[in-house]
Amino acid sequence: MTQERIELKPIGRVESPLTDPAAAPKQGDEGAPDAWLILAARLTEGLDGIEAGEEIIVLTWLDRARRDVLSVHPRGDLSRSPQGVFSTRSPDRPNPIGLHRVEVAEVDGNRLRVRGLEALDGTPILDLKPVLSADVSER
Amino acid sequence: MTQERIELKPIGRVESPLTDPAAAPKQGDEGAPDAWLILAARLTEGLDGIEAGEEIIVLTWLDRARRDVLSVHPRGDLSRSPQGVFSTRSPDRPNPIGLHRVEVAEVDGNRLRVRGLEALDGTPILDLKPVLSADVSER
Repeated sequence: MTQERIELKPIGRVESPLTDPAAAPKQGDEGAPDAWLILAARLTEGLDGIEAGEEIIVLTWLDRARRDVLSVHPRGDLSRSPQGVFSTRSPDRPNPIGLHRVEVAEVDGNRLRVRGLEALDGTPILDLKPVLSADVSER
Repeated sequence: MTQERIELKPIGRVESPLTDPAAAPKQGDEGAPDAWLILAARLTEGLDGIEAGEEIIVLTWLDRARRDVLSVHPRGDLSRSPQGVFSTRSPDRPNPIGLHRVEVAEVDGNRLRVRGLEALDGTPILDLKPVLSADVSER
């Protein structure tokens, strides 16, 4: 059932002052610095409609994560019981896709400056999406 | 910069009464029926900690989407101006990863029954994540 393999090609890269995994904030609202999303120039057309001040969702490939882990201590806290990776935001998981909600500060051609992104410098970007009200509404 | 290729392997599949792309709701809060997320049995440990009543984020691979499209009419409405795909939730995009916020109705071993998933029957599942308050808070 799950034998199929899927090939992705990054649409761009993160440029960030964050280079040390141990020092990076675990979530973007925990003190991440501004970062740039640098898209491949041939994809610039796809950014049409994104404006400064908006919030977007960034999907990244967490290329320094482990893919053979199914249980983790939440937030790396050994005093907490291990949980299944799918009930945590651990980067270690079978398909380590990062999900980040950020604010666009500036749009410059194929580059977006964003606030609140905890991804490390060089992280491949897989996709960008607008935030929908259904994502954020209390149900 | 973006030459690297990334290989994903689905963690499971969607089982849903939705089989016709034209008839499927565009978003999960627009009348999607209950669906099952069937994970590979070897990954069951990763579900530990997910409980009925919780909301989770499901990442899927939209395997019927086009990957060569950079501009679309939002929601397929030809009366609306084309926009870059990264400012829309169109399934057509370079890396067609679906992002769905759903409610877990039932957990049964390697199977989760969920409410509000608009993905089609057979859609590969890439990842599951908990909803964080930072995802849903008004900023």
